[in-house]
Amino acid sequence: MASLQDIGVGAGINLLSALMFLLAFAILRLQPVNDRVYFPKWYLKGIRASPRKAGAFMNKFVNMDFRTYIRFLNWMPAALRMPEPELIEHAGLDSAVYIRIYILGLKIFVPIAILAFAILVPINWTGKNLDNITDLTFSDIDKLSISNIPPGSPRFWAHLTMAYVFTLWTLYILYKEYDIVSTMRLRFLASEKRRPDQYTVLVRNVPPDPDESVSRHVDHFFCVNHPGHYLSHQVVYNANKLADLVEKKKVYQNWLTYYHTKYERNPKTKPTIKTGFWGLWGKKVDAIEYYTAEIQKLGIEERSEREKVISDTNAIVPAAFVSFKSRWGAAVCAQTQQSRNPTIWLTEWAPEPRDVYWNNLAIPYVELSVRRLLMAVALFFLTFFFMIPIAFVQSLASIKGITKVLPFLKPLIERGGVKSFIQGFLPGIALKIFLIFLPSILMTMSRVEGLSSLSSIEKRTAAKYHLFLIVNVFFGSIIAGAAFEQLQRFLNESPSEIPRTIGVAIPMKATFFITYIMVDGWAGIAAEILRLVPLVIFHLKNTFLVRTEKDREQAMDPGSLNYSQTEPRIQLYFLVGLVYAVITPILLPFIIVFFAFSYLVFRHQIINVYDRKYESGASFWPDVHRRIIIGLIISQLLFMGLLSTKGAARSTPLLLVLPVLTIWFHRFCKGRFESAFRAFPLQDAMVKDTLERATNPTFNLKAYLQDAYVHPIFKSVESEEPLDPDDEDNNPIVATKRNSRLGSQSGSKPGSRGAQEDV
Amino acid sequence: MASLQDIGVGAGINLLSALMFLLAFAILRLQPVNDRVYFPKWYLKGIRASPRKAGAFMNKFVNMDFRTYIRFLNWMPAALRMPEPELIEHAGLDSAVYIRIYILGLKIFVPIAILAFAILVPINWTGKNLDNITDLTFSDIDKLSISNIPPGSPRFWAHLTMAYVFTLWTLYILYKEYDIVSTMRLRFLASEKRRPDQYTVLVRNVPPDPDESVSRHVDHFFCVNHPGHYLSHQVVYNANKLADLVEKKKVYQNWLTYYHTKYERNPKTKPTIKTGFWGLWGKKVDAIEYYTAEIQKLGIEERSEREKVISDTNAIVPAAFVSFKSRWGAAVCAQTQQSRNPTIWLTEWAPEPRDVYWNNLAIPYVELSVRRLLMAVALFFLTFFFMIPIAFVQSLASIKGITKVLPFLKPLIERGGVKSFIQGFLPGIALKIFLIFLPSILMTMSRVEGLSSLSSIEKRTAAKYHLFLIVNVFFGSIIAGAAFEQLQRFLNESPSEIPRTIGVAIPMKATFFITYIMVDGWAGIAAEILRLVPLVIFHLKNTFLVRTEKDREQAMDPGSLNYSQTEPRIQLYFLVGLVYAVITPILLPFIIVFFAFSYLVFRHQIINVYDRKYESGASFWPDVHRRIIIGLIISQLLFMGLLSTKGAARSTPLLLVLPVLTIWFHRFCKGRFESAFRAFPLQDAMVKDTLERATNPTFNLKAYLQDAYVHPIFKSVESEEPLDPDDEDNNPIVATKRNSRLGSQSGSKPGSRGAQEDV
Repeated sequence: MASLQDIGVGAGINLLSALMFLLAFAILRLQPVNDRVYFPKWYLKGIRASPRKAGAFMNKFVNMDFRTYIRFLNWMPAALRMPEPELIEHAGLDSAVYIRIYILGLKIFVPIAILAFAILVPINWTGKNLDNITDLTFSDIDKLSISNIPPGSPRFWAHLTMAYVFTLWTLYILYKEYDIVSTMRLRFLASEKRRPDQYTVLVRNVPPDPDESVSRHVDHFFCVNHPGHYLSHQVVYNANKLADLVEKKKVYQNWLTYYHTKYERNPKTKPTIKTGFWGLWGKKVDAIEYYTAEIQKLGIEERSEREKVISDTNAIVPAAFVSFKSRWGAAVCAQTQQSRNPTIWLTEWAPEPRDVYWNNLAIPYVELSVRRLLMAVALFFLTFFFMIPIAFVQSLASIKGITKVLPFLKPLIERGGVKSFIQGFLPGIALKIFLIFLPSILMTMSRVEGLSSLSSIEKRTAAKYHLFLIVNVFFGSIIAGAAFEQLQRFLNESPSEIPRTIGVAIPMKATFFITYIMVDGWAGIAAEILRLVPLVIFHLKNTFLVRTEKDREQAMDPGSLNYSQTEPRIQLYFLVGLVYAVITPILLPFIIVFFAFSYLVFRHQIINVYDRKYESGASFWPDVHRRIIIGLIISQLLFMGLLSTKGAARSTPLLLVLPVLTIWFHRFCKGRFESAFRAFPLQDAMVKDTLERATNPTFNLKAYLQDAYVHPIFKSVESEEPLDPDDEDNNPIVATKRNSRLGSQSGSKPGSRGAQEDV
Repeated sequence: MASLQDIGVGAGINLLSALMFLLAFAILRLQPVNDRVYFPKWYLKGIRASPRKAGAFMNKFVNMDFRTYIRFLNWMPAALRMPEPELIEHAGLDSAVYIRIYILGLKIFVPIAILAFAILVPINWTGKNLDNITDLTFSDIDKLSISNIPPGSPRFWAHLTMAYVFTLWTLYILYKEYDIVSTMRLRFLASEKRRPDQYTVLVRNVPPDPDESVSRHVDHFFCVNHPGHYLSHQVVYNANKLADLVEKKKVYQNWLTYYHTKYERNPKTKPTIKTGFWGLWGKKVDAIEYYTAEIQKLGIEERSEREKVISDTNAIVPAAFVSFKSRWGAAVCAQTQQSRNPTIWLTEWAPEPRDVYWNNLAIPYVELSVRRLLMAVALFFLTFFFMIPIAFVQSLASIKGITKVLPFLKPLIERGGVKSFIQGFLPGIALKIFLIFLPSILMTMSRVEGLSSLSSIEKRTAAKYHLFLIVNVFFGSIIAGAAFEQLQRFLNESPSEIPRTIGVAIPMKATFFITYIMVDGWAGIAAEILRLVPLVIFHLKNTFLVRTEKDREQAMDPGSLNYSQTEPRIQLYFLVGLVYAVITPILLPFIIVFFAFSYLVFRHQIINVYDRKYESGASFWPDVHRRIIIGLIISQLLFMGLLSTKGAARSTPLLLVLPVLTIWFHRFCKGRFESAFRAFPLQDAMVKDTLERATNPTFNLKAYLQDAYVHPIFKSVESEEPLDPDDEDNNPIVATKRNSRLGSQSGSKPGSRGAQEDV
């Protein structure tokens, strides 16, 4: 076990590495050549012009103004300077509320830490339980923890009282925050400008009709059942194949540009490629000619596919975006049941056009239900048995495994350097690769579940990742052993034994979690601000692909707040903090530093870097709230288990009150606030409608909504390759120039589309 | 353990007692004097006239036509003769669907029993595990059960396959039944005549407004937010005190009548009563004078209270019944969220006027939430710790306890007869009394929870009773010991150990459950048809209280289908049947007899006896479905536990598929059908509206709805004591003659009101 000194050294190292990252960031961000990596948000907003245009040649690439280097941390106050309303205006409510999670962490843990240091630490320090034990497994850290209290001591009453105080404080803060966020959301929704999704309802599972087309069927149904409110509708085309073709063409275009550039720089040798798998084998051909031909072929294919999609009635999926004359009408339709068969004519509030996940709109009810079952089973196995395939890969990656499968490599492997590399590095790599790919695996699983919007897919992914982190990182760290071994153990232990087993192990793992916080929380967050991967990719693209200013625009990758990965990680810190608040309070300052530092970094990133893929109006908050509640309940149960092994079993009934209270509080909050995140209240809809009718009575809503929910593949077509104008005018669903302007008004930038399709 | 012979004898005795009940019923029901006890439904419908009016004097009381006695079972085919559509018309959908539960039992268990007897019984019989054991604890029954298979035998594959077959069959039947019932419900709703609740929404938690009265506030809110649909509203008066007064006056009136009758029959002695507690002590006064004076006093009090309620604005609670111009408008309002604060302006589909539970309409959100928490905690303690107070009472009721508390009784108690009575009978009585009062206790708890309709209170009570029966009757019988001991045991056993412990005990308890089915299921149901308690009460009332034909009408107590008690009991049979289907198939015929016999009896009762307190359109079916699913899952887990102790642990993963599949099936059905029981689809509402507009375009809906949701205390007033007509006309909310006619049209009979107030 690490002593206080060890922790101090660890903290020093991690602080130093965090500082290094910050220093690197401070230097790199001042170089004009990196401007588009560190300030893409401003470019997207059109406020920042390329710095390359002005000044001396050298100044275009390297910042020679050395005075700016001195104030290398001045991004911090700058990040804090923007007030919240302006931040919402600038970055959207999702981002503004997201960084409130860090503030929430500070609000919860700062007072808890002060109380714990004032009351619990002195009580623990003078406990003297460990003074008599000269065992090496205890250290100074443990003297500050509950381990230092002798069994059956009346001092446990202090911890018990503090458990109550901490729980009540956390619940109080959670309630207030839920209140604030729901008010922010409602104000945000009320202040929003006219947006197509306010008038639109997504209708899924339109039943087939032998006499009518989907379009006419939808028209008739809503004319009859929402008379006076129904305005128009937009059918959904199955353009998945077309989107694939367009995507493929884009990739080929990039390669063509790359080889062109290469050829220009070195006109002596014509670049060649091999046509086989991944360009590794096959016939050698001239690269530029090959890609030109391929792109032409794809262009023809794409055009015929496009025509097929538009003319073929089978390409219309049984879903539609139905628009209403007023927000009131849309709110009513979204919240009510249309048909007596609740699996057809399913209505829900339409996601923003850029938030729609087009591939999933056509799935029928039974299939959806089966998909959910399969994914739930898959998630269970992924969470509890993921170590099995990894162990298998690791055994393959061992010396024995390799020599068995590929015996001819034997002489190579048994050389000293290679051998130690394989033994020391490969098994770790296998696990690391899995963990890197895990979010994408979970994301794919959520996509398969058939959700209809990107935001809901991200939320579902976050839920899955949260489960994985709790089981494998939190419990997996406390009780050594793979998750499925834990599972087996828990099945064979009594329910009252489980919290006891874990409770006993918890104080001993405090140093581990302190280290974890420093490595993952401090240095990891500092690495986030450096954006090393986007930096490298941008410069690669800039060198090989960028020919015009517009290309450079596209090469810029602002990234986005990766909610599905970062939120569950924050939850892990909440969980660790709540668990150790009573047991080892010395851990709390590390958590507080994490929350404060992350707040700074993410506020900076949101202001300067990240672009939004969608705006859900902070609809993720109920999940955040629920997961903190889960963390709180886990901490209460574990504390109960710990105390019962400490000769204070009589406290169990007293402590049992806490989880019951917490669950009740959760249900209370759910009833009190959650519907603000699910439904659009009629009163608010009516107010907005009335206001709008008064200020703009002649607005042509039908024209405004006509093409809002066209598949983006039909919108973005212009920017890449203008079609024959005759073609276009004949096809009402293909975006005309006016429409594409509307499209970008409603936030559908070409760049954001890519994210919808990278399955 | 009982042998086959013992079971045979038990079956004989119970069949005999059931037969005795049936015989008694057959004789009693033919006596004209009992006609109102056994055929009240027909009297209420006005189809059956009193048989006393015609025929010879003797024939009025005793049936002398001996030919009718011969066919003493001819009520059975008569009960079956009425086709289902007519039954729905006659007794309502609730009753018609309720008896389908018995049919569902037959559909599930008859094929299962046939399969089990064809396959499992021979396999068990030839298992020969018990042949070598000459232990007395095993009997012939066990030779037919899974106990007869030696551990690790491959014969368990048959049981495993059957577990799959039985589960799939049960799910298939459940799905089909859910489908049928939801179709029946929707057809019923569609075919219903115009009813006030179709146009009306119950609005709770109207926020206080300093400038406006509740009535004006409601009016303004719905005029603004549902323009074109809102019609009118009816505020709710807090008439609880008034209702108490009226109730009390009615009781006194009954006593007055009783003493009048007594005096008339024996004019020599004037009847006297004591004015003290329960008439046990206090001053002796003339009874008739006393009650006349009291009634007069109450009449004055009632009148002033009535005026106070009507004129005082504080008597208006923050709830209202809001009516709409069309069913579509009401359906929209009921299904949407009105305000951005989801705890105010809560709308729900209004219950029928007779179904409203008036006392609960005024509870604010926070209080409601706290009440639910308290009741949940109370239910937990009631279920798991109910034995503690009973044991305390039992110890008091023992010889020692009594001599300690009341030492002067000692000489009396220690006499032989009294002693054995106390020792052998009193402790049992304490438990029995508790069990008799349990449903009322649970009902009171559900009332306290603050539900707004009688039907929902009954449904909630049924859920509580179901939990109690599963824990205390099912698990309590299998594992001897009180529920809290079980709880403690389970907390200290591992989750995989619990099904094993119970699984092992299950085959041994088969004979117990067979006996239980015969006593509770066969003889108990036969006792139900005899209606002994209503019979006695009717004759008592008839002798002492009935003076006019109208009094006799009121003395008649048709009772009603006691859903909250009978449904959970049926569920117990489902549970026992599903658990034993694979383990001891010999139990199945007993269950089948129960279902078939109950079906007959309840069909007869529904046709001839029970009156409806409300009509919820079979809205309880999702609960029935869910509870059978719970039974199925319990049976699967217990079978898994049993097999794992039988050396067939490798089957566990195979068996784990079953509960996962069952839970998924439940979720699937929930999505597929449940909303048909919760919401009124807009399509159906629109069809009915259009139809009605076409057939009856000039109907005055406002007048029709004006007084539909007046508190029954203002409606029933006429029938008891006509008010001053001037008074009435000034008060628009007091029912006029036309309104009370409407009231009875919508089913609000004076008799049904009593049930709403006997808290």
